[in-house]
Amino acid sequence: MSESSESKRQIRLGAFLMETGHHIAAWRHPDAHAGGGLDFQHYAQLAQIAERAKFDAIFFADSVSVRDTNLPSLARTARADHFEPLTLLSALSVVTQNIGLIATVSTTFNEPYNLARKFASLDHLSGGRSGWNLVTSSTESEALNFSFDRHPDHSERYERAKEFYDVVAGLWDSWEDDAFLRDKESGVYFDQDKLHVLNHRGKHFKVRGPLNVARSPQGWPVVVQAGASEAGKELAAQTAEVIFVAHQTLEEAQTFYRDIKSRLARYGRQPEHLKIMPGIFPVIGKTQQEARDKFDALQELIHPTVGLSLLTNMSGGIDLSKYPLDGPFPELPETNGGKSRQRLLLDLARRENLTIRDLYLRIAGARGHQQVIGTPQSIADQLQQWFEEEGADGFNIMSPWLPGGLSEFAELVVPELQRRGLFRTEYEGRTLRENLGLPRPVNRHVLAEREQAAVAVR
Amino acid sequence: MSESSESKRQIRLGAFLMETGHHIAAWRHPDAHAGGGLDFQHYAQLAQIAERAKFDAIFFADSVSVRDTNLPSLARTARADHFEPLTLLSALSVVTQNIGLIATVSTTFNEPYNLARKFASLDHLSGGRSGWNLVTSSTESEALNFSFDRHPDHSERYERAKEFYDVVAGLWDSWEDDAFLRDKESGVYFDQDKLHVLNHRGKHFKVRGPLNVARSPQGWPVVVQAGASEAGKELAAQTAEVIFVAHQTLEEAQTFYRDIKSRLARYGRQPEHLKIMPGIFPVIGKTQQEARDKFDALQELIHPTVGLSLLTNMSGGIDLSKYPLDGPFPELPETNGGKSRQRLLLDLARRENLTIRDLYLRIAGARGHQQVIGTPQSIADQLQQWFEEEGADGFNIMSPWLPGGLSEFAELVVPELQRRGLFRTEYEGRTLRENLGLPRPVNRHVLAEREQAAVAVR
Repeated sequence: MSESSESKRQIRLGAFLMETGHHIAAWRHPDAHAGGGLDFQHYAQLAQIAERAKFDAIFFADSVSVRDTNLPSLARTARADHFEPLTLLSALSVVTQNIGLIATVSTTFNEPYNLARKFASLDHLSGGRSGWNLVTSSTESEALNFSFDRHPDHSERYERAKEFYDVVAGLWDSWEDDAFLRDKESGVYFDQDKLHVLNHRGKHFKVRGPLNVARSPQGWPVVVQAGASEAGKELAAQTAEVIFVAHQTLEEAQTFYRDIKSRLARYGRQPEHLKIMPGIFPVIGKTQQEARDKFDALQELIHPTVGLSLLTNMSGGIDLSKYPLDGPFPELPETNGGKSRQRLLLDLARRENLTIRDLYLRIAGARGHQQVIGTPQSIADQLQQWFEEEGADGFNIMSPWLPGGLSEFAELVVPELQRRGLFRTEYEGRTLRENLGLPRPVNRHVLAEREQAAVAVR
Repeated sequence: MSESSESKRQIRLGAFLMETGHHIAAWRHPDAHAGGGLDFQHYAQLAQIAERAKFDAIFFADSVSVRDTNLPSLARTARADHFEPLTLLSALSVVTQNIGLIATVSTTFNEPYNLARKFASLDHLSGGRSGWNLVTSSTESEALNFSFDRHPDHSERYERAKEFYDVVAGLWDSWEDDAFLRDKESGVYFDQDKLHVLNHRGKHFKVRGPLNVARSPQGWPVVVQAGASEAGKELAAQTAEVIFVAHQTLEEAQTFYRDIKSRLARYGRQPEHLKIMPGIFPVIGKTQQEARDKFDALQELIHPTVGLSLLTNMSGGIDLSKYPLDGPFPELPETNGGKSRQRLLLDLARRENLTIRDLYLRIAGARGHQQVIGTPQSIADQLQQWFEEEGADGFNIMSPWLPGGLSEFAELVVPELQRRGLFRTEYEGRTLRENLGLPRPVNRHVLAEREQAAVAVR
């Protein structure tokens, strides 16, 4: 199923949910539910707010560690305890009907059979609403929880990730869509000819298959990625259907957009089959001043220890404690962490001549994503511009605090986008793919048979 | 929380759910929902039937492969496609309030950090109802999906399992119960002194910790085991709180019961803190004849190809096709599969002088577990006898077909047990531990501090 040519291109919206909100001090907000990170009802409420507003999906990041390098800082944030995303999204599938459910899971610390199975299972549970955000993980603290002595190199992680993806996609094609007959009379439960063994033998994995879950409603759960390095972009061009990305300026966003879309042809893919969704951190007020005041109130809740530690994490582990807080942001030695985020930080500091303190205050909310502080109209203006000028196909909304920030976006910005004809008023379909306008993958074995048949006819 | 000394010992009941039922031909039953294996509503209904009847828990077995060694047989069963248990139980946590949620997950094909986290997450989602059935997996087909060339040896698997358990339990104690203050005023989210790094460095795993989930409502999810080999029994005596086991006779059950309970003292454990629950396959009729007729009708639905293949799987991969179907069951060469099940099969065949065909018909339903065919009263009589004569603390109910078999047990046998004062009429508590009468583990770090304080006083 693809978008019909006459239908107008529409903005896609994801709700990127995170404990009590994306602002590092969100949990201290007077209206925030400070214990929300482990309260199912909190997330059920958030998912339902997003679904009522017709968001395409809710989205969860993930990390398989507590980043406790700076314990005094960590102890002042709500980032150390939260649900595991796949268990949480499975539960949320029961209290929602249409919204997509996207979980981040790392290829570095999992086995492809387990991962393929869990996402297929969630896809069946939810009637075709699951999505996998493929990440390779970027922190040493995670590696140390998985019997590594050090974090694997960037290139090594991406090599594994590509093979991991191939295995997962292969397993999702284990069964043809119509393999299960379940014919009580004849006693035949499935058609043997529609079961396919994978027999993958690669550098990183040997996986025989088949998967013990029927092909799922979406065929394959939607594949999401977030890497912005060269290896990340190339993998995304080959495999991703949604890219979640961080940009500070429209120009940056446009460059990235053109770059990614131009890579698709070499993999035989259509530009509209990969949706690029930058993160947006919106602070909404009735007036510009009200929005600014709301933001300043949040910023005042940040302890300097927390701000500094945030920069260290963002830069992939660089220790900034030896530099003066009100001095310039130093040249970054290259580390093994997320390279794209290091580059992003440095560019921002240079462009605007920021001190270390300025920089941590700047990224405290949006973590390198675009911060938009304004009225519903001015925020809609900016989203419209980015969308129409090909900086984005949609946006991943990173609400500063929850649930308030998301409710405001749902009640004030979404109706404005709908009035402008830029965003749906009803879900188009039942599955995440249908709503995103992404094609349902034809099973590779069916495709091969069709091709053989075509050759035979010629 | 432990059982008060004056309260009468009560039967524990688990509902062992499996697709359309435990009988291999259950899916062909006229009332069975043949597509139930991947229908969430089917499982929601089953969980709610069990919860209304006050069962302690629902229980899911698991395998990370399709056992397709005999494809023509497999194609005639409903065993090849089903939900992954942790995603399914997370979803079921939303439609239930009191019943325990026990998922099987293998220590051979997972990482302890991921497992500790998912069960803690499910425990938070469900308000303290999660349980982990620790297995080491016994089939080659699973190993081949996880980059192994062959299935690891029994002893190797158990060695890894013990270390795996130690890491998981250690991670569950990462945070003290009262670590999270979430004090908006002071800005302190958690008390640093109540966070503990594990720093495990063993033969199989190096896991630094801490877990990124707060200590869960139960402290530790309930640990269940099913191994009946010597290594399995010893691991269970050290670590299990529930044992799910297969017995054919009361005498066997009593021997096992005494054996396990006598091992507990050496690990400083109380006999009542490990519940032994044999599997029971009940076929229920208003009269003995009606029950027998129901069973015979199911047996007639078994194709010989399916029966023979079932024996092969049960015996850990032994090929029986070269032996005459109506001849005696041969001596089994020892294989690397589940040893306890091989012994069980051989004992049964010798004791009752069964042919291969007799044996597959015999185990087709209960897979080595006790088959009870009778009236609600006669079934209750047998459960009462096993319970009172110390063959069991409770039973894992393996309904022949679903939902009908479970409804009948809930509506006919449970009230009979309640009339006899052997089974609860209301849940005692809110968590699985409270209902099972198991103590909540004190965090090891709190325990260590208490001990230090006691020494200081002396």
